[in-house]
Amino acid sequence: MAEERAKRVELAEIGEFGLIKRITAAVKIKNESTLKGVGDDCAVLSYPNNKVVVTTDLLMEGVHFNLVYVPLKHLGYKAVSVNISDICAMNAIPRQITVSIAISSKFTVDAIDELYAGIHLACERYGVDLVGGDTTSSLTGLTISITAIGEAEENELVYRDGAKPTDLLCVTGDLGGAYLGLQLLERENELFRLNPTVQPQLSGYDYILARQLKPEARVDMREIFSTLDIKPTSMIDISDGLSSEILHLCEESGVGCRLFEERLSFDPQVRKMAEEILINPLVAALNGGEDYELLFTLPIADHEKVRNHPDITVIGHMTKKEDGCNLVTIGGLQEIPLTAQGWNPLKSA
Amino acid sequence: MAEERAKRVELAEIGEFGLIKRITAAVKIKNESTLKGVGDDCAVLSYPNNKVVVTTDLLMEGVHFNLVYVPLKHLGYKAVSVNISDICAMNAIPRQITVSIAISSKFTVDAIDELYAGIHLACERYGVDLVGGDTTSSLTGLTISITAIGEAEENELVYRDGAKPTDLLCVTGDLGGAYLGLQLLERENELFRLNPTVQPQLSGYDYILARQLKPEARVDMREIFSTLDIKPTSMIDISDGLSSEILHLCEESGVGCRLFEERLSFDPQVRKMAEEILINPLVAALNGGEDYELLFTLPIADHEKVRNHPDITVIGHMTKKEDGCNLVTIGGLQEIPLTAQGWNPLKSA
Repeated sequence: MAEERAKRVELAEIGEFGLIKRITAAVKIKNESTLKGVGDDCAVLSYPNNKVVVTTDLLMEGVHFNLVYVPLKHLGYKAVSVNISDICAMNAIPRQITVSIAISSKFTVDAIDELYAGIHLACERYGVDLVGGDTTSSLTGLTISITAIGEAEENELVYRDGAKPTDLLCVTGDLGGAYLGLQLLERENELFRLNPTVQPQLSGYDYILARQLKPEARVDMREIFSTLDIKPTSMIDISDGLSSEILHLCEESGVGCRLFEERLSFDPQVRKMAEEILINPLVAALNGGEDYELLFTLPIADHEKVRNHPDITVIGHMTKKEDGCNLVTIGGLQEIPLTAQGWNPLKSA
Repeated sequence: MAEERAKRVELAEIGEFGLIKRITAAVKIKNESTLKGVGDDCAVLSYPNNKVVVTTDLLMEGVHFNLVYVPLKHLGYKAVSVNISDICAMNAIPRQITVSIAISSKFTVDAIDELYAGIHLACERYGVDLVGGDTTSSLTGLTISITAIGEAEENELVYRDGAKPTDLLCVTGDLGGAYLGLQLLERENELFRLNPTVQPQLSGYDYILARQLKPEARVDMREIFSTLDIKPTSMIDISDGLSSEILHLCEESGVGCRLFEERLSFDPQVRKMAEEILINPLVAALNGGEDYELLFTLPIADHEKVRNHPDITVIGHMTKKEDGCNLVTIGGLQEIPLTAQGWNPLKSA
């Protein structure tokens, strides 16, 4: 025990500049647009031909993640993914990130190494350069703030406001997994809390756990759109739940929509976990969030091009604004207005 | 009292999207390089001719600021200034910022309005556009994460690594004020804590208080350099204390330096406050930090151009690396090695 303690490297021993050197030692610049990365007052980038897109996210311990059941390496990876997802939602190519962290004294250097192992892995996966950031302390808990930068030709960019009535409403991948993965982790954590001899039962749920713990941004879709010779008229990534994102597209584009319940299919693990906690998997898709798939609209003339594509599902179509935003239940029996019940970090507890 | 309570607008009432609308309603885009600001998955910028510089800072309540004596409006202004200062340290022009905040439930909408009043004021002052960010909740305290973006021609950029032996070491403005302003605020706060009937004695200290509470980034220096027809060979902003910043320039440039104590002059309020707390004002300059002045080097041939400039003081010169980094005391009596004793957020309490 004493020996183990002795090996533990404290942050105070290496200081801020030691920590910065440690976490940036492995950085190899991959992109031509990165002229200068970590090490000066600013990073220096070059974008002579394309437009530059910028997005940022702030993740707080206890609000966005629980370190009791989220491994730090996964957290680092996810923190990058959620920002890259926003770059994908513009149909742009991610190129750089900055990462700022605030850590309390409870974190060891090893713990920070784990976090950055996930961040570096995501940088490899997405082909982005870590070009800057800030490392500081916090009184309690871990804070992660990431800014991602990407590029696209001006005519490639897709905004939220271009959807037209009759456009097809499409989604990548499948939904609800991330939310149900979180429910599973929280259930098993609660059981463990009540009885620490109980081992968490997580086997058979690898898909929904991966959806929650290690989401992948859809960097592949830009090329798929290009290969299919289509360009979305509007696009957004699904971070807060399908309902909320559909309402954003409708509001920004000044249109309504009809979403068909029967068009949504679910992974068997999503169905199984939903059944266990007595909810309809549709609810997880509509209000759960964190799936980081892309929601987009296409001209109806493109229907044949996407009809059988394994990564794209047509889930509805846009309408005139006055028709509202509605969910059409299975069999077309009912039309129910969509409401944003996704995650709201500022609502009352 | 009940009536006052009734007027208080809670964050939960307006939600995340209501808050975003509220804090971005006043944003007017000022820069051509901003194609799309707040309202999509990313901001969209255009930099076809110049290089893009990016910097980011993370400010944590209880570590970087104490809301007991820091007004929120000042805090918002300062949070922007410290990032703009990094842009100035590259000799670039600031253009855009993103602002992310995490707030606990103790903050009212009015408090957030105050914070953003300061942020908007700084955006006006520095001519930058607020183009994005994130708003979320925290379990405790306020977190502010800002990323600033600027531009410069490639040959205008100044890095930390260009100083040569014999170069002049120069500084803008005067130093030590921000640190002594903080000491004053902490002293008066402590007296108030011990005896709440005691009113804080802050009169006569307006300069050092302003230096601490509302620092100004040196956006003026780029034009001054241009007018004087000089270009620094290396530059950094003074956030952690003069010692620490000099050592950065020396390390990155592979040089040593001699800093002359007699070249540093101090504001009378700096002298007065230093005397009250029984320290040498030199210590405040060397190790205090937060002055947000610029430290830079110039070829010795430029000496005449800067000799009598009111904004620039030559405080020493660079030497060969093997000569080390030394402080020459008044009268040249002693040479003392410079050590970085500035603020280290990760050191032990």
